[in-house]
Amino acid sequence: MLGVFDSGLGGLSSVKELARCLPKEDVVYFGDTGRVPYGTRSKETIIKYALQDARFLMQFDPKAILVACGTVSSVAMEALQNTLSVPVIGVVDAAVGAALSASKNQKIAVLGTPATIRSGSYRERLLGQGVQVLSIPCPLFVPLVENGHIREDDPIVKETVAHYLHQALSFGADTIILGCTHYPLLKRAIGTFVGEDVKLINAAAEAAHCLADRLEKDGLLAADGGEQRFFVSDSPEGFADTARIFLKKDIKEAVERIDIEAY
Amino acid sequence: MLGVFDSGLGGLSSVKELARCLPKEDVVYFGDTGRVPYGTRSKETIIKYALQDARFLMQFDPKAILVACGTVSSVAMEALQNTLSVPVIGVVDAAVGAALSASKNQKIAVLGTPATIRSGSYRERLLGQGVQVLSIPCPLFVPLVENGHIREDDPIVKETVAHYLHQALSFGADTIILGCTHYPLLKRAIGTFVGEDVKLINAAAEAAHCLADRLEKDGLLAADGGEQRFFVSDSPEGFADTARIFLKKDIKEAVERIDIEAY
Repeated sequence: MLGVFDSGLGGLSSVKELARCLPKEDVVYFGDTGRVPYGTRSKETIIKYALQDARFLMQFDPKAILVACGTVSSVAMEALQNTLSVPVIGVVDAAVGAALSASKNQKIAVLGTPATIRSGSYRERLLGQGVQVLSIPCPLFVPLVENGHIREDDPIVKETVAHYLHQALSFGADTIILGCTHYPLLKRAIGTFVGEDVKLINAAAEAAHCLADRLEKDGLLAADGGEQRFFVSDSPEGFADTARIFLKKDIKEAVERIDIEAY
Repeated sequence: MLGVFDSGLGGLSSVKELARCLPKEDVVYFGDTGRVPYGTRSKETIIKYALQDARFLMQFDPKAILVACGTVSSVAMEALQNTLSVPVIGVVDAAVGAALSASKNQKIAVLGTPATIRSGSYRERLLGQGVQVLSIPCPLFVPLVENGHIREDDPIVKETVAHYLHQALSFGADTIILGCTHYPLLKRAIGTFVGEDVKLINAAAEAAHCLADRLEKDGLLAADGGEQRFFVSDSPEGFADTARIFLKKDIKEAVERIDIEAY
């Protein structure tokens, strides 16, 4: 079993990628929809929430935990790794590694929520490797995705993508990190705007690939399974409705509500 | 003293109108920025939060409480009125009254957050008065406003307004309720799209007017004062920055953070 958590439902991008590259693994997902968003909270609150989320998942005896939340991956990885007895993979480190491999001109743009960008987590890790970085907060992308505005020919999507991405083109980035698990749903719209020569790094998918590599290396791949269960801390109905945008299937029967404050 | 609360900072539209029509009243505002948005949460969570918000304000011994949150005004007014010992005025009833007076052709459109629209609160009240109603959920308007996208010539604003409002024109509404306290900031963009013959009802301002009428009727108008204090449940800095979009002034010195979970 693999555990995945996020402050909300963006982490379903990682679940989707896990199902693609590790179809025989059972996955338990926790989305902290009752306390979303984490990005505006203090570091100590984020760590407290992250540890609760992880403790909830540890009940299911996971082989590893994928932190599909940009905020938690930015500020709470050390706390998680020091506390948990299983490998913990975060989206930030996974995406940074992939971007560094992908970039030829050493100019990398990072798209993220205002909180992720403000935390400087991508920027610090990339600058430490000697590349030039342009950070672009994209506060409208999450509401666009959560309201189903993802098509590249949607006029609102086109104007919003142009608004945020024109800077990445002037900067000359050859690689762009989609540093929020919602953004892969806008990948086609972003790709159309920036052109096919620019590489888009999907942080949610990269974390899933890191996890797959780790399980394979450790000889821990499952022989059969593939069940998915979902837990949330607010209304399961609202979650299942929006989850359809991410997973392109109905998961209503597989979603349960829990009281995360109890962990 | 008057108490005003909202799930975030949209209620500042009501504070602005109170300052205009009742300049001698002290106002204490609570914005639940740590738990915003309410609109996506379950009814029971919204009621729990609303009661905590009101309990916080009751400490200041207010003459009345203005519920400047469309979501709370839609689903928690009864709970608040049954619990509190002072008059409670909500944006929904205030706007409905004003819209019924304004409409000549009895066709009224309501713009609101998905939760407000889903609650059916405007619709029910209006249908009960025999008018035709078109309800339009506008989930992108709040993120637009909070990120400063309010100008009528902003291409993202134009596309988003056209996306939501074209139905109001086909419907033939002569009156449109701006059923969320963020929407008055888009009034100019919406007005440009629908034309000047369509009346726009500002729910935030109408609630302030109802409150003013009530105080006058009860002989409770203040002789002097006019101090404004602001409390929030997340970073005061972030709040003060965005508040500037609503109040067109700097309130940094007047904002304090509190722990709303303690109420």
